[in-house]
Amino acid sequence: MRMTTKSRVAVAGASGYAGGEVLRLLLAHPAVEIGALTAGSNAGETLGPLQPHLVPLADRVLEPTTIEVLAGHDVVFLALPHGQSAVIAEALDDDVVVIDCGADFRLEDPAAWERFYGGPHAGTWAYGLPELPGRREALRGARRIAVPGCYPTVSSLTLAPALAAGLVEPDLVVVAASGTSGAGKAAKTHLLGSEVMGNASAYGVGGVHRHTPEITQNLQPLAGDGVVRVSFTPLLVPMSRGILATCSAPLAASATTTADDAHAAYVEAYADEPFVHVLPPGSWPQTQSVLGSNAVHLQVTVDEAAGRLVAVGAVDNLAKGTGGAAVQCLNLALGLEETLGLTTVGLAP
Amino acid sequence: MRMTTKSRVAVAGASGYAGGEVLRLLLAHPAVEIGALTAGSNAGETLGPLQPHLVPLADRVLEPTTIEVLAGHDVVFLALPHGQSAVIAEALDDDVVVIDCGADFRLEDPAAWERFYGGPHAGTWAYGLPELPGRREALRGARRIAVPGCYPTVSSLTLAPALAAGLVEPDLVVVAASGTSGAGKAAKTHLLGSEVMGNASAYGVGGVHRHTPEITQNLQPLAGDGVVRVSFTPLLVPMSRGILATCSAPLAASATTTADDAHAAYVEAYADEPFVHVLPPGSWPQTQSVLGSNAVHLQVTVDEAAGRLVAVGAVDNLAKGTGGAAVQCLNLALGLEETLGLTTVGLAP
Amino acid sequence: MRMTTKSRVAVAGASGYAGGEVLRLLLAHPAVEIGALTAGSNAGETLGPLQPHLVPLADRVLEPTTIEVLAGHDVVFLALPHGQSAVIAEALDDDVVVIDCGADFRLEDPAAWERFYGGPHAGTWAYGLPELPGRREALRGARRIAVPGCYPTVSSLTLAPALAAGLVEPDLVVVAASGTSGAGKAAKTHLLGSEVMGNASAYGVGGVHRHTPEITQNLQPLAGDGVVRVSFTPLLVPMSRGILATCSAPLAASATTTADDAHAAYVEAYADEPFVHVLPPGSWPQTQSVLGSNAVHLQVTVDEAAGRLVAVGAVDNLAKGTGGAAVQCLNLALGLEETLGLTTVGLAP
Amino acid sequence: MRMTTKSRVAVAGASGYAGGEVLRLLLAHPAVEIGALTAGSNAGETLGPLQPHLVPLADRVLEPTTIEVLAGHDVVFLALPHGQSAVIAEALDDDVVVIDCGADFRLEDPAAWERFYGGPHAGTWAYGLPELPGRREALRGARRIAVPGCYPTVSSLTLAPALAAGLVEPDLVVVAASGTSGAGKAAKTHLLGSEVMGNASAYGVGGVHRHTPEITQNLQPLAGDGVVRVSFTPLLVPMSRGILATCSAPLAASATTTADDAHAAYVEAYADEPFVHVLPPGSWPQTQSVLGSNAVHLQVTVDEAAGRLVAVGAVDNLAKGTGGAAVQCLNLALGLEETLGLTTVGLAP
Repeated sequence: MRMTTKSRVAVAGASGYAGGEVLRLLLAHPAVEIGALTAGSNAGETLGPLQPHLVPLADRVLEPTTIEVLAGHDVVFLALPHGQSAVIAEALDDDVVVIDCGADFRLEDPAAWERFYGGPHAGTWAYGLPELPGRREALRGARRIAVPGCYPTVSSLTLAPALAAGLVEPDLVVVAASGTSGAGKAAKTHLLGSEVMGNASAYGVGGVHRHTPEITQNLQPLAGDGVVRVSFTPLLVPMSRGILATCSAPLAASATTTADDAHAAYVEAYADEPFVHVLPPGSWPQTQSVLGSNAVHLQVTVDEAAGRLVAVGAVDNLAKGTGGAAVQCLNLALGLEETLGLTTVGLAP
Repeated sequence: MRMTTKSRVAVAGASGYAGGEVLRLLLAHPAVEIGALTAGSNAGETLGPLQPHLVPLADRVLEPTTIEVLAGHDVVFLALPHGQSAVIAEALDDDVVVIDCGADFRLEDPAAWERFYGGPHAGTWAYGLPELPGRREALRGARRIAVPGCYPTVSSLTLAPALAAGLVEPDLVVVAASGTSGAGKAAKTHLLGSEVMGNASAYGVGGVHRHTPEITQNLQPLAGDGVVRVSFTPLLVPMSRGILATCSAPLAASATTTADDAHAAYVEAYADEPFVHVLPPGSWPQTQSVLGSNAVHLQVTVDEAAGRLVAVGAVDNLAKGTGGAAVQCLNLALGLEETLGLTTVGLAP
Repeated sequence: MRMTTKSRVAVAGASGYAGGEVLRLLLAHPAVEIGALTAGSNAGETLGPLQPHLVPLADRVLEPTTIEVLAGHDVVFLALPHGQSAVIAEALDDDVVVIDCGADFRLEDPAAWERFYGGPHAGTWAYGLPELPGRREALRGARRIAVPGCYPTVSSLTLAPALAAGLVEPDLVVVAASGTSGAGKAAKTHLLGSEVMGNASAYGVGGVHRHTPEITQNLQPLAGDGVVRVSFTPLLVPMSRGILATCSAPLAASATTTADDAHAAYVEAYADEPFVHVLPPGSWPQTQSVLGSNAVHLQVTVDEAAGRLVAVGAVDNLAKGTGGAAVQCLNLALGLEETLGLTTVGLAP
Repeated sequence: MRMTTKSRVAVAGASGYAGGEVLRLLLAHPAVEIGALTAGSNAGETLGPLQPHLVPLADRVLEPTTIEVLAGHDVVFLALPHGQSAVIAEALDDDVVVIDCGADFRLEDPAAWERFYGGPHAGTWAYGLPELPGRREALRGARRIAVPGCYPTVSSLTLAPALAAGLVEPDLVVVAASGTSGAGKAAKTHLLGSEVMGNASAYGVGGVHRHTPEITQNLQPLAGDGVVRVSFTPLLVPMSRGILATCSAPLAASATTTADDAHAAYVEAYADEPFVHVLPPGSWPQTQSVLGSNAVHLQVTVDEAAGRLVAVGAVDNLAKGTGGAAVQCLNLALGLEETLGLTTVGLAP
């Protein structure tokens, strides 16, 4: 019987954007059954008015985010503000799959954690970006998984092949234009529609954004003896979803890399990855192509006059950047087909 | 064996918005196999750069839209400019399912066709809006189906219960705000991003829009002895997808309808419809909730001071308004479950 | 000497959208000198980070909104939440020009005030829509002026000529699509960029929006013996500024009005109005054309099949809809040229 | 008498975005009188439907772009496709002020022109970016002026102080997010609203965009012995107007520059510039603040971990980036106050 094999899944933080996206994808997933949905200040409310796009769950009532409510599920997704995951994860049984969409367990270096987040470091879980070299195995059968940040996901995948193939010096520049949903659903004046429509702005400039050490952590293992340095600038642009990361680095001193070489290296690096799509030469990524999908679109070229390799990547920050990665990790954790319930097809136009 | 039972499907007009949306949905449909893709001026080109969101079809080459190419499929979707469908449909075998996303076979009245479209009337096919009273049966097993216009879909479903229940006089006012994809992918100055962003405009005002007679045709059968008159004004607003239709009519002279009565009538009218979602009292439709989904969101109230019933409906013009309706009709034509491959879950935020 | 004749102006509520727009226009006004700027919770802060577009005022420090601060100016603009204006206005000298951008003094009928706003009615001031028949004279030299609501401004001017000329029955339907700035700068979840981009929604449906009685009040005097009834539905669409109002009414029973007749009536009605621009036949209003300007764009036609006159109007809700109207009233109050410091030129594209 | 001293001005290319913006600003300019308006394929049409925001010019008829029409004016603005300016400029009297919004006369190096634009180099005119060191004097009284490209304007001003003060190596990385109006008003599929809304994309990646040599030309004189290399990546983001340029470069080897040092250098560099506004520390530029204005907003910091200086600049691509610069050059050419008819106040929100 099919029903008996479905995993029972809870989502903590179901009224926010990350939780909503996890639920959107779980509703299309054939191997799960949606159990408890919890919230903080929205506990006690019906989901319908909070997430009106999730019609099949419209009548569900949000419960408080407590151990009692979350216990008894096979899988628990945490989509909570930073700092709340550790206590919950500790109280759940060791064989429960806990997938944290927050930052608490992403960083390996306690010093980096303290510098960028403050407070004590909670620990490090399996890092949910299986497309990074060497990361997939740790996710198979894992019971504690940290979903990567949205900017690190696209930035790391856009630069990894160039570093791994020794095409560039590890002096990286990333300028990433993001939609507003990455900033969450809490009401803040600078995120009002009136403020963001018709407006492009920079923030967290100069290496102070919290995703900077995560990008460095992802790419340092690919840089050989070199020390990775990342200049990361996030931009807010007028769209709800999507990140477009423009990444560049100086060509390696010894290299005579052409645009064709670089493209070939990227194609080869991701040849077996179901969600990474290196575009044909001449096409450049755009976020609309990946809306709602788990795909990463990439392109690369060489600017000979400037002496730099330039690569561009696009993801949906809520899908592959958060909820899609979470479901992909679920599949790996449960030993299912990695692509189950996910798509590479975007919603365009 | 599963493969042998799949229907082989061709899409004519695969490089446009309607054709692209049909393909987006077919890629998630378990009972079809995608065959020939054809285009007009884009014939010979690879689909990838034209529809970069359809990754699994990126390497497909577009063929010319000819009988030879389209023949030999179980199903043919036509997403062509007006006036091109009749010749193709006549040349295809009678047992091929032909689903026309264009206007050629929607209208029953040749005079209305000639007045609004010009040229001779091609005929009338089964009208693909099964949620309208009496329309579903004709679609089961049909071999020639006309997909409704996007505005008529939402306008008709938003007003039908009020007329059918005798709550209003048939003097209807519809103001429908649409995203720009409804205007298609042909390059026109007034549809440039620079022209539509930060801009709301009215067009086709005064009963001259071609969807006016289609709305009338849909609603007249529900109006009893009354003669339906529709004042229809379409608006263009700064978004790619979605239509929000604000519809009102004078309360029937004899009626003492309350908002609760009206809501109850709508809930009852659509109680068995899997894609029509009457929101709970106090919630009003928004297009974001139905993006990419086949759902129709509705709400209704009574304005006693103005003596009018006011109802609002939201659809995704490309999904339920075009491609989703086409797939829903495919399911009915082939005797499949009507909801197969379709979802009520929208992509938000 | 010119400098000595400049009026000294204070703006209460300088950190919000209405106050910011008043300041934007005052900075271009040759006959005023900007005095105190006040705020509520932002008092003590520098204006620069709050209104970064107002560069010449970047170093100004906001003072608390008190009588002491506001006293001693020739003109005081109030851009405050409802209910705060009366106390301030009473405490200021009678010869100070007080221009209230809020709702407190707009309605003449205390019962309507109590029903839509609650609490006691503060009174009625000269109504700042000089383009309405009979309103301009009361504004010349006035010392207490209520700036109209943004929706009533465009709705009233779009329908007034049709009523005044007896072309329609006073059974009015208004559907008005607005940008988000009309909802103000207070942080609310449903106004987040992620919620409003790619989204059209209806709110305040069924005659419950507070601007409904104000539209009725403006139009009743033009309706002769008829009783004006207004069905008003506001929509939120993805843009910061602008309102597009689609207005219609049944043609008067005895009339044989053509589209040309209606257009001629509108042209004649506004022939002497510097800010009202009736477009040539065939052109329809769009909000982009009036961004930042004090212009109202109008067009009208007749739908013979539906038996209705349909008129569409566009304004910038913050300019002619709030701050521009306030400055226009300032000019009338001070006996200056009515157009001083204002423009009919919009910012497009 | 004032009228007799006004300069008579013609605008060639009045139906496009650049020409429309020049006209928007000229309508607010006290020292000019608008003469002939010309167009290519739109010649013979009335301006109203083409530029509906320019109400005072609504009834003007466009003339063909010929020498006969343009002759007899004191000033001629050229807003034409590349390659058309030289013939016109040669035919006009030497004492006519000719201000070219196109690219024909911007580059000094014929080889760079041929490589990026093709065809023969037309020549080099006074370069209309007076805020660049050494450029203003050549503009005073000039009779032939080349208005800079929009990307070079903001990129050059954002990096100039860092190079001039020796804070950085001349290995520059610029990623500039632009609104769509920079791509002009010609109808192209990839610029349709449906394609650009909800979408961020990169184009011209790898040093192939035509504005690359212009940025290099502007900055090389400030780099001392160093050879300027520019990696320039333009992005298209969903807004009509505005460019946000994120610029960075490695800190000079010998320098121990702090963020405060860098900020002080920028403040000093632009202390006397009326249109360049270096924001206070902690505030970062956003395009909304400069909409419609001639202002440039800048901010700078130092990323010690990455070893780079990062500066961000914002302009309105049509205003300071095109039409505003053109009017500023007009003022310099005619010996008027440089700020006449221009503003630093933006249209926000």
